[in-house]
Amino acid sequence: MKLAVDAMGGDRAPAEIVKGAVEAARKNPCEIVLVGDEEKIVEILSEEEGWENLPLKIRHAAETISMGEHPADAVRNKKNSSIVVATQLVKSGECDAVLSAGSTGAAVAAAQIILKRIHGIGRPAIATPIPTPKGVTLLLDGGANVDSKPVHLVQSGIMGALYAEHVLGKKNPRVGLLNIGEEETKGNEQAKETFRLFSNMTAINFAGNAEGRDIPAGDFDVIVCDGFVGNIVLKFGEGMALTIFELIKEAIEAANVATKLGALLLMPTLKDLSKRLDASEYGGAPLLGVNGYCIISHGSSSAKSICNAIGVANGYVHSNILEKIKTALDEQKF
Amino acid sequence: MKLAVDAMGGDRAPAEIVKGAVEAARKNPCEIVLVGDEEKIVEILSEEEGWENLPLKIRHAAETISMGEHPADAVRNKKNSSIVVATQLVKSGECDAVLSAGSTGAAVAAAQIILKRIHGIGRPAIATPIPTPKGVTLLLDGGANVDSKPVHLVQSGIMGALYAEHVLGKKNPRVGLLNIGEEETKGNEQAKETFRLFSNMTAINFAGNAEGRDIPAGDFDVIVCDGFVGNIVLKFGEGMALTIFELIKEAIEAANVATKLGALLLMPTLKDLSKRLDASEYGGAPLLGVNGYCIISHGSSSAKSICNAIGVANGYVHSNILEKIKTALDEQKF
Repeated sequence: MKLAVDAMGGDRAPAEIVKGAVEAARKNPCEIVLVGDEEKIVEILSEEEGWENLPLKIRHAAETISMGEHPADAVRNKKNSSIVVATQLVKSGECDAVLSAGSTGAAVAAAQIILKRIHGIGRPAIATPIPTPKGVTLLLDGGANVDSKPVHLVQSGIMGALYAEHVLGKKNPRVGLLNIGEEETKGNEQAKETFRLFSNMTAINFAGNAEGRDIPAGDFDVIVCDGFVGNIVLKFGEGMALTIFELIKEAIEAANVATKLGALLLMPTLKDLSKRLDASEYGGAPLLGVNGYCIISHGSSSAKSICNAIGVANGYVHSNILEKIKTALDEQKF
Repeated sequence: MKLAVDAMGGDRAPAEIVKGAVEAARKNPCEIVLVGDEEKIVEILSEEEGWENLPLKIRHAAETISMGEHPADAVRNKKNSSIVVATQLVKSGECDAVLSAGSTGAAVAAAQIILKRIHGIGRPAIATPIPTPKGVTLLLDGGANVDSKPVHLVQSGIMGALYAEHVLGKKNPRVGLLNIGEEETKGNEQAKETFRLFSNMTAINFAGNAEGRDIPAGDFDVIVCDGFVGNIVLKFGEGMALTIFELIKEAIEAANVATKLGALLLMPTLKDLSKRLDASEYGGAPLLGVNGYCIISHGSSSAKSICNAIGVANGYVHSNILEKIKTALDEQKF
């Protein structure tokens, strides 16, 4: 696999992105093209021993797209931005996939404008893996689009089910619709109509409505929602985990010696647990529905997250899922 | 204060509801009317020593409304259901407030049909208190309505701000709009238009968009969203907390002696923390926007939650906030 990495995208770019790529290149059988400011990338690489012998290349890109810019406008106007150049490498066939931790909007816009949508898909969706005690649940859309129509949510369900089966190895994955109650009469207009469409499909294993509490429980393999709701839920989950851990830390610091000893003894267990729940262990979420492999990483990605995301990209590309999605859509009637 | 309690509503009704009411009657200077199956209520009361001397009454109601029933239809057809009879007690002036842990939809429908909406309010909203390290954040709408129009969200913001100020004692409360980014250009059509309306208002302290992670952080006093999103977020948060605590428990049970000792030493700190984060400590959420005081409690409410919710009801009624909301709406232009 040959992967284009947007070296300039992310809160901790380019340093953590480049370091993550080096780590991945040491581990995975893949070639990586680092796209961005050549001078800065070389400066970071020079600190990594023996990087010259790794399958790493640099492609200079002078511009960057920041979080505040209008995604589609920025992609159209900044032809030399790292995300545009990286996505072009996939379009031209020079790379198999593109990975970015920069502006999600810009990465999605670049994919839509340059790679185009798969025939039959109205809106691409980010399939975000959520760690649960029973394994990974895929939530889509994680924030690629808002105000989606019911048919778009159904398309997300089909793509999510194929990804869960062929990339995550889940048999006959259970697909749920995120809603405010179990009954089919519950929800807003979008959810009610989506429920009706899902119920008429035999191609996927539709398991009914999923409530908010079903997301962390892990009883569904795929949970479908509008990107507006998905993005809010994901950020809320992150914030909650962060708040709980900070409170535990504060409480321990302020506590007596016995409690501190207790914390010390319990620490390996808590660390192990937090690792199981840590989204950065997965590192990247595929953007499904465009003509090319595209991985969206979290804005705050560390080198470790990027390295893990490159592992995700590897499995994603080798699954050949793009062709499977195309075939499934040709066979579907909406 | 005289409070009508729907004794039959809730997963653990009537036992936990009745016990919670007894506990509250021992603590609070208020009269409670338990509405529901008289025989069952008396049976539970008979286990409580000296209940005859408490300010408790029973009002018989033969029917109940279950979770699966269509709320408005059920309220119209079941005139003798506990929630309808309890809400009628407020309408007639016999009670000052009504409290239910039963079907949220039925409680909201009963309030809307029997008490009617406040003039100027298009949709009532549930103001759910969320515990954060910096105090309580109010999220509204917690699930009274879906597919709300921007003007309804603005009305929720006004009501939430008044509640935060006059009941929770927050000065000049910061009101945020739940969205997928900080910039005013972000979000779905509903959010973008709501942002515009909020920005033109001087009557409340609009602090811009709040992202999902801002909910548990506690930087906003009031966060406004559609009831569809609010309900999903609240249930997701509950599920996540539950999952994390179960995982910690499992990990400790499977661990070695040192870890078990650690857990034992740390337990008082963890319990204290979990108490700070426990939503049942607040117990009830007011339904704002109807002509009467109405408290919605969680379906899984224990006696303790109900007792705390009755405390909330007490403060709510004494705040005289209904009149303040009416005045504020008369002065507002939309």
